[in-house]
Amino acid sequence: MTTNQKLDALRQSMKAAGVDACLIPTADPHISEYLPEHWAARSYFSGFTGSQGTLVVTLTQSALWVDGRYFIQAERQIQGSEITLQRMGVAGVPTLQEYLKTTLTAGQTLAVDGMLAPSSLILELEQLLNPMDITIRSVDLISENWPNRPALPASKAWLLEERFAGLSAAEKLAQVRKALAQQNANTLVVTRLDSVAWLLNLRGGDLPCTPFALGYCVVDEDSAVLFLDKERLDSQSVEALQQQGVSIQPYTALVDFLKGYSRAARVLVDTEGTNWAIYQTLQQNSHFTMLEGEDPIQALKAVKNPVEIQNIRNAHIKDGVAMVRFQIWLEQQLAAGSSLTEVDVDAKLFELRTAQPDNIGISFDTIAAYGANAAMMHYHATPESCSWLEPRGFLLVDSGGQYLDGTTDITRTYALGPLTEQEKDFYTYVLKAHIDLAQVQFLEGCTGSNLDIMARAAVWKHGIDYRCGTGHGIGFVGNVHEGPQRLHTRLQKVAFEPGMIVTNEPGIYEEGLVGIRIENELLCELRTENQYGRFLGFEVITYCPIDLTGVRKELLTQDELEWLNAFHAQVYNTLKPHLTQEEAQWLEEKTKPLA
Amino acid sequence: MTTNQKLDALRQSMKAAGVDACLIPTADPHISEYLPEHWAARSYFSGFTGSQGTLVVTLTQSALWVDGRYFIQAERQIQGSEITLQRMGVAGVPTLQEYLKTTLTAGQTLAVDGMLAPSSLILELEQLLNPMDITIRSVDLISENWPNRPALPASKAWLLEERFAGLSAAEKLAQVRKALAQQNANTLVVTRLDSVAWLLNLRGGDLPCTPFALGYCVVDEDSAVLFLDKERLDSQSVEALQQQGVSIQPYTALVDFLKGYSRAARVLVDTEGTNWAIYQTLQQNSHFTMLEGEDPIQALKAVKNPVEIQNIRNAHIKDGVAMVRFQIWLEQQLAAGSSLTEVDVDAKLFELRTAQPDNIGISFDTIAAYGANAAMMHYHATPESCSWLEPRGFLLVDSGGQYLDGTTDITRTYALGPLTEQEKDFYTYVLKAHIDLAQVQFLEGCTGSNLDIMARAAVWKHGIDYRCGTGHGIGFVGNVHEGPQRLHTRLQKVAFEPGMIVTNEPGIYEEGLVGIRIENELLCELRTENQYGRFLGFEVITYCPIDLTGVRKELLTQDELEWLNAFHAQVYNTLKPHLTQEEAQWLEEKTKPLA
Repeated sequence: MTTNQKLDALRQSMKAAGVDACLIPTADPHISEYLPEHWAARSYFSGFTGSQGTLVVTLTQSALWVDGRYFIQAERQIQGSEITLQRMGVAGVPTLQEYLKTTLTAGQTLAVDGMLAPSSLILELEQLLNPMDITIRSVDLISENWPNRPALPASKAWLLEERFAGLSAAEKLAQVRKALAQQNANTLVVTRLDSVAWLLNLRGGDLPCTPFALGYCVVDEDSAVLFLDKERLDSQSVEALQQQGVSIQPYTALVDFLKGYSRAARVLVDTEGTNWAIYQTLQQNSHFTMLEGEDPIQALKAVKNPVEIQNIRNAHIKDGVAMVRFQIWLEQQLAAGSSLTEVDVDAKLFELRTAQPDNIGISFDTIAAYGANAAMMHYHATPESCSWLEPRGFLLVDSGGQYLDGTTDITRTYALGPLTEQEKDFYTYVLKAHIDLAQVQFLEGCTGSNLDIMARAAVWKHGIDYRCGTGHGIGFVGNVHEGPQRLHTRLQKVAFEPGMIVTNEPGIYEEGLVGIRIENELLCELRTENQYGRFLGFEVITYCPIDLTGVRKELLTQDELEWLNAFHAQVYNTLKPHLTQEEAQWLEEKTKPLA
Repeated sequence: MTTNQKLDALRQSMKAAGVDACLIPTADPHISEYLPEHWAARSYFSGFTGSQGTLVVTLTQSALWVDGRYFIQAERQIQGSEITLQRMGVAGVPTLQEYLKTTLTAGQTLAVDGMLAPSSLILELEQLLNPMDITIRSVDLISENWPNRPALPASKAWLLEERFAGLSAAEKLAQVRKALAQQNANTLVVTRLDSVAWLLNLRGGDLPCTPFALGYCVVDEDSAVLFLDKERLDSQSVEALQQQGVSIQPYTALVDFLKGYSRAARVLVDTEGTNWAIYQTLQQNSHFTMLEGEDPIQALKAVKNPVEIQNIRNAHIKDGVAMVRFQIWLEQQLAAGSSLTEVDVDAKLFELRTAQPDNIGISFDTIAAYGANAAMMHYHATPESCSWLEPRGFLLVDSGGQYLDGTTDITRTYALGPLTEQEKDFYTYVLKAHIDLAQVQFLEGCTGSNLDIMARAAVWKHGIDYRCGTGHGIGFVGNVHEGPQRLHTRLQKVAFEPGMIVTNEPGIYEEGLVGIRIENELLCELRTENQYGRFLGFEVITYCPIDLTGVRKELLTQDELEWLNAFHAQVYNTLKPHLTQEEAQWLEEKTKPLA
């Protein structure tokens, strides 16, 4: 079926249900960033496969909102369909809210599957549309119009050992109950998969690239109930959970459990992480007093514990070894004149990374993008559509691994041969941006919107911007994107704290021309404390050389040069014990200080 | 009377009035930053003369809140009194709110003079204290306990000519009515003196260093009423205002006018700029529908019009000439071995600045601070208490002028002789901070909290902070501090726009040791517009050399060095036509490029 045919089928159901428009956000019942295929409705109906986007279908038109990362990809993927692309943030482009307000009229109804929409979005839309006499109704129009819909995932679920996680489920439950009490609450419906995974040290393989098991957890003062089909866990794990004070009920039993909850409870509700169906259920049971607030687990898990930190460093060493081996292989292939595609690059890197001890997969689909393809920030090569590498210009490789001791995310941009003057300029600007942020020391209290410009200024200076944040938080054996800390010019509420990890990934993306990104992970650390307060800084925990071919040394300041040389010395010293003699020699050459 | 005696007298009135605590913020009926002496109640009762601070007096104790700028000064000024100093922002120090919450008990009453408190503060305190059964009452306990209270100012008021202001009152009223309509309002009680001054091109001499006349203005769809005693204006001005559609009523008639207002009006209320007495009056007249929002004049006047901008540049040239002549005089005095105090410095600068064409005074009390005195950010030398200059270390001079064509603010820190290695380090860090901010290019949408770190990072790098913003907006023939734009790490809502002016004044202040600040004014300008958006930058509009004696050239980057040399070339070229040949030769020497 074409996109237009799928939308026409959907419209038949809309008419039958008496609704005038249908909203399909990118969401699963857990408001995950990367969704199991079963819930990839927005991809199915629009044809756009990016990780974020919102589709609205009315009886006569349809529109898709995507952010700057996806302008190019979305345009290509919806080409030939009836859908209008709405480039978010571009002048003159209506927001979703503005569009609904001007497109719908009094008496009309907007449909959304309540399980597949964050309640914060629907509450906001209700506030906007209800006064105009427009109703929002929770109704599933997706299932009946999605032939061959992928099944619900049901991989084996397992418990991450405490030697990796650092804390037991019981210890974490105690932390959460304390945090709830501080907010005058005593009950939490844990809905986000990253929160469930952290809280119970529960893992699984339900999501692509993210080792989570679909589940909810309801925590109150004296009990914790995990909603997960029991047969997915081995009996040892079930017993272990029970010993930690966690009982188990079926995955689909949550809504009925909440409907039947019969004790007075002050429940903390994070509207951004709770789907609208759960929200409505809580609202309809008068035993619940709802307190709006942030899921305290998000903040707790953002500060990695000392055991996690030590493990993460180990994971990065293994990841660095894989990256070094990959780069050696790439150079050998190019030197031998082999014909390689982006997909070959992806496959080789996958092979090397998954061969590392305790690796359990990759943390996201590798972006191996040659030349102008790299201008698409989230490009993914497929055998059907990929480029051949040529001995000139840049190859951008953004990849990461899942290990039992951590999750990694790294980008390197390699010169495959001669570079243009502009390519060298751009590469050096990106490197300067990367270093300027990495070396900042800052007073406690700074958020990502204070710090972001430390990187961005180096490209803004040349009238260039990257249409995304400078960096994101990252989970522990979890999501590759995991907040709440983040580097972005837009207001960030969360201040950096020692133990938080953030990526540092400025870039330059010129459509049809070039894409460059250099990404390390940074661990926030305490530097010094004096009469002015606590000064924080970043320890680089990514161990992989930065390609120096494109660097215009004369554009680097003395400080930047010193950072680069110190970083390379650290990479060499850290990886050397884990490399063969030949590999170590190669790395020594790559990490020689620039004079 | 000693401070303790004044507080005891106040307590007698408190008991008589049946109140348990008295709140004395720093405010006049217009919520001005610099108050006429008539309203300097907090200074009178506490002895602390800084520009900001809040005093609370209970029947048994008293406490004074001051921000980082004033920690040292306040400590000295309240020494020997019963008052406890509350250093705002320091760990463990209660906020005003926390203090009131823990000090007052159910059934008690807090008194405040409603005319002398912003309604935003009282509304916030009511929300906090009313649930605890603590009442806030508007009562004036100040007048009866302030013998010899200075009279209300009543200087001659006058109209700034359009060739200076760029727009007529009628044109500005039209802009305000349009802005009100955009917020669905039709009436505005203009209470802030800077708003009244801008709106009607009204000026006067009621405030120290700020050429404002005490007045209010009520603007509705078809009328504008200025509340100002008519005899303070000459008849030509009265007529001119009437021709612009502005009628005049006595200053004290405002509250009765609002009580008697009998048309239905949607009034926009800026709670931060409106005192509690006016707020309560609006609330009690059912003809008013109150809409909370920002006084639109604050945003309108922040973006200077082209005529203002040209005038401001002229004012800065004159100010630069005065500063150059001052520095020449200072060098001559030092070379001749004259004995000089900080007060002599202040007096000479006053003489030179006020001798400039169209000068109408200084824009704030000059800070001439030698050596360790400069660690007090807002130090003011007096004949009774000032230091002698010595031929070593630094003299910090922060000063500014009021001209008919603009308001200026500049700081220079001069080496008076040999410097320690640490003084040179500190001076160079401050210079780097200053330059790094001055040269930033940024995408439209950036606020002062995005930009602040561009300056601060250079001192944070060395574990040093300055406990204040990096810079503030400035008025046009108005307040030396005038927002809403501002450079500070804390959340700023207002994005920079071309035409806004902000100071750039990072510093280092080590108690008992040294104070260094370098301050220029920056005019925001459009640099370039391309596929990424509009890039903005800053034009420096301060024309005065920066002392190079303390600069460690080797710590500057190439970019910083180039900025410094280009700035000095601009200073020389701009001022030369206005100097004698001898002065020009001196300036040529001072602005020679560093190699």
